[in-house]
Amino acid sequence: MKPEILEQLKQLIGKEHVQSSSASRLVYSYDATPGYQSMPDAIAVPGSTEEVAAIVKMCNENRVPIIPRGSGTNLCGGTCPTSGGLVLLFTRMKSILEIDEENLTATVQPGVITKSLIDAVEERGLFYPPDPSSMKISTIGGNINENSGGLRGLKYGVTKDYVLGLEVVLPNGSIIKTGGKLAKDVAGYDLTKLMVGSEGTLGIVTEATLKLIPIPESKQTMLAVFDSMERAAEAVSSIIAHHIIPATLEFMDKPTIKAVENFAKVGLPLNAEAVLLIEQDGEEAAVSKDMKKMQVICQERGAISVEAAKTPLQAENLRTARRTALSALARLKPTTILEDATVPRSKVAEMVHAINETALRFNLTICTFGHAGDGNLHPTCLTDARDKEEMERVELAFEAIFEKAVSLGGTITGEHGVGEMKAPYLEWKVGSAGIEIMRAVKQTFDSNNIMNPNKIFGKDTRKRLVVKS
Amino acid sequence: MKPEILEQLKQLIGKEHVQSSSASRLVYSYDATPGYQSMPDAIAVPGSTEEVAAIVKMCNENRVPIIPRGSGTNLCGGTCPTSGGLVLLFTRMKSILEIDEENLTATVQPGVITKSLIDAVEERGLFYPPDPSSMKISTIGGNINENSGGLRGLKYGVTKDYVLGLEVVLPNGSIIKTGGKLAKDVAGYDLTKLMVGSEGTLGIVTEATLKLIPIPESKQTMLAVFDSMERAAEAVSSIIAHHIIPATLEFMDKPTIKAVENFAKVGLPLNAEAVLLIEQDGEEAAVSKDMKKMQVICQERGAISVEAAKTPLQAENLRTARRTALSALARLKPTTILEDATVPRSKVAEMVHAINETALRFNLTICTFGHAGDGNLHPTCLTDARDKEEMERVELAFEAIFEKAVSLGGTITGEHGVGEMKAPYLEWKVGSAGIEIMRAVKQTFDSNNIMNPNKIFGKDTRKRLVVKS
Repeated sequence: MKPEILEQLKQLIGKEHVQSSSASRLVYSYDATPGYQSMPDAIAVPGSTEEVAAIVKMCNENRVPIIPRGSGTNLCGGTCPTSGGLVLLFTRMKSILEIDEENLTATVQPGVITKSLIDAVEERGLFYPPDPSSMKISTIGGNINENSGGLRGLKYGVTKDYVLGLEVVLPNGSIIKTGGKLAKDVAGYDLTKLMVGSEGTLGIVTEATLKLIPIPESKQTMLAVFDSMERAAEAVSSIIAHHIIPATLEFMDKPTIKAVENFAKVGLPLNAEAVLLIEQDGEEAAVSKDMKKMQVICQERGAISVEAAKTPLQAENLRTARRTALSALARLKPTTILEDATVPRSKVAEMVHAINETALRFNLTICTFGHAGDGNLHPTCLTDARDKEEMERVELAFEAIFEKAVSLGGTITGEHGVGEMKAPYLEWKVGSAGIEIMRAVKQTFDSNNIMNPNKIFGKDTRKRLVVKS
Repeated sequence: MKPEILEQLKQLIGKEHVQSSSASRLVYSYDATPGYQSMPDAIAVPGSTEEVAAIVKMCNENRVPIIPRGSGTNLCGGTCPTSGGLVLLFTRMKSILEIDEENLTATVQPGVITKSLIDAVEERGLFYPPDPSSMKISTIGGNINENSGGLRGLKYGVTKDYVLGLEVVLPNGSIIKTGGKLAKDVAGYDLTKLMVGSEGTLGIVTEATLKLIPIPESKQTMLAVFDSMERAAEAVSSIIAHHIIPATLEFMDKPTIKAVENFAKVGLPLNAEAVLLIEQDGEEAAVSKDMKKMQVICQERGAISVEAAKTPLQAENLRTARRTALSALARLKPTTILEDATVPRSKVAEMVHAINETALRFNLTICTFGHAGDGNLHPTCLTDARDKEEMERVELAFEAIFEKAVSLGGTITGEHGVGEMKAPYLEWKVGSAGIEIMRAVKQTFDSNNIMNPNKIFGKDTRKRLVVKS
């Protein structure tokens, strides 16, 4: 970055809000994804939409890449500055601007921590369902860019389902407002939904209006233990086939159970091949009825035990245990590569089976957990990025996993995003005509390719897991 | 249309599937919107995605406009061939291809009648919630192009919320597949949601995978009668503020009640200033609890009476009565202009008040009904298109209504689409930068502007209601 650009940046937003020391640049050179570390040229912390617009305009004129970043918890290399440039932080734009109880909306800045918003609305008897596992540190802006899911996705949907309106700075520096506090709006193309999940490649979200719903009056939690993954998957299918949509329907396989139990100590059964964490919420009598039915279904499908959480604390412990799966697994080996191949829910058993076979074939440790109810699996490879030979096998194994997912009518990513990591595989899902029109959309918004370059659209030949030297 | 193009068309899909007689052209020269009648050059009825692709390619090469059309029930001039060209019908592509009970999806061709799909899935204990008033004749393809809403939108959302995947023929003739039988998919830009509501301006939907949900086990219906519109609106706000989201929360004003009762004879109270049609569905006990609470709320807000439907037939009659509002009003005057200005739900009373004032000011008859729960109002002007002087006033009145809606944080269209009718007002909602980027998206998909031209993007000077001579 030319010194005069850095100087201009300081003039635009104040020199105390621009960082360019080696230490700062190092801090923002990586995210939660292994293998994509790369130094940015500088970091800017704007305080307002107008400052964001001024920065974007200046960067566009000077062809400086911009990488908008929440807390960097993404798992697709989505915020690694692999072309250098300017990392944009939102730590000065982190206000909950309004919780509108009449219209059931919250208006927030992008830097708000997901959990803070959830807590703030729950205090008023309202509910913001999207709950990515990283919600204690992730930001709403990051969630919007990645269209984050979570444990409550099966019943309540994902981030996109709760974004009603956005303020966005386009790459040319102009500011648009989409949607509003509106349950219905069909005035022109749906730029709101197009922006959600666009991974920072089309513009910068500077404000969001989110939909809230009334908080369910009660919730119950139970754990079903199985001695085979197939039986657990059959129970999942049977629950849905009985027309029950539980609030949560999560599973963990044996190695994940073991790692989580060692880490979280909540009393998970170490001899189980699979557990299902099942929750239902809603009106109390209806919840009890559903839980009873699901208990019977699990038992019919051969569950070893089905036990309800007896206290809210015990329920919270089970949820927390599931949420810590990645952290727990990450302690076991130097490098953890977590994917989110997703299939139609009827194909979960087949996909888990294929993942296990693939791990055997390539002699790798792959643990699997995830959102069984919506077919969103997290095969997680425990490996070591320094072992080049093993990393080649990891690469091949995930290729096989993605190929299988797509062949089952699934997708290469259910909730993590494409980022840089899965860019080489996008075409398998969307086809060459799909890639072509997506590239054209990108070009339309961002003709100079300054917005989070290298993400979504890959160079054909680049292998995702080959670690930079 | 040059004779050789017509000839080519006949060769592509068979001459029995191409119409160009004056009679045929007249049939497809208009839709449910007054004032936009215009003759197409021909009508084509393709039988497969491949035939659609071949037609599109040929039209693109020859710069022939294509107007995809379901049943033409839209209210925004969305399917009037105002630049001539080829009307595309889907009466040969009207199969429900699959109802997948394991994955809770339906895969359909665009020509399927909405009500047929609803009935087919309900037979299996499943539920497809989007229920536009025209559902007995509207098609799923039309619903997708317009992102249709309906009476169940408040609780269940609109068409977009149920489209999981699409097959689309792009204007260059290539075929893309988006999404799938997937609860979660973030592989690239969300072209599914971009296509839904794009009014046939970006491509032709040739197949759709729709989300189904379990059908609620019970439903209750009641009618609350008010002697002032304000009180009815307050009851609506109070219901939501009590964190109840009913399945239906519809209102009709006095003149609408009168017209509907004369037409449908279901026993609506002719002396009422406003009625609310309220429904809740779900688990039986929970439904009863909600209905009881809503009854009390309505009484507290001054309802003259609140009466539950005693039989399913009575409930169905009330729903049908509400659905016939447009038809009932349309009998009263030669021309009916129905709009769908939409506001945040907290502004419903203020907006209804403004509509009534506007009608008075311009000396017009405007009846209002609509989806009170989601702020989606249908001010309906009873007029006569042959009366030029009155039509000028109608034009001015709707301008005032749109302006007011936008000033209240609302939108110019909640569920009907922009089409040609509201194109001149789109900028009020989305701003000049918004229009600019939307136009650029259109240009990206459809560089020759063959896909339903004149829709969404208006010529600045054209007044919407000036009837063609």
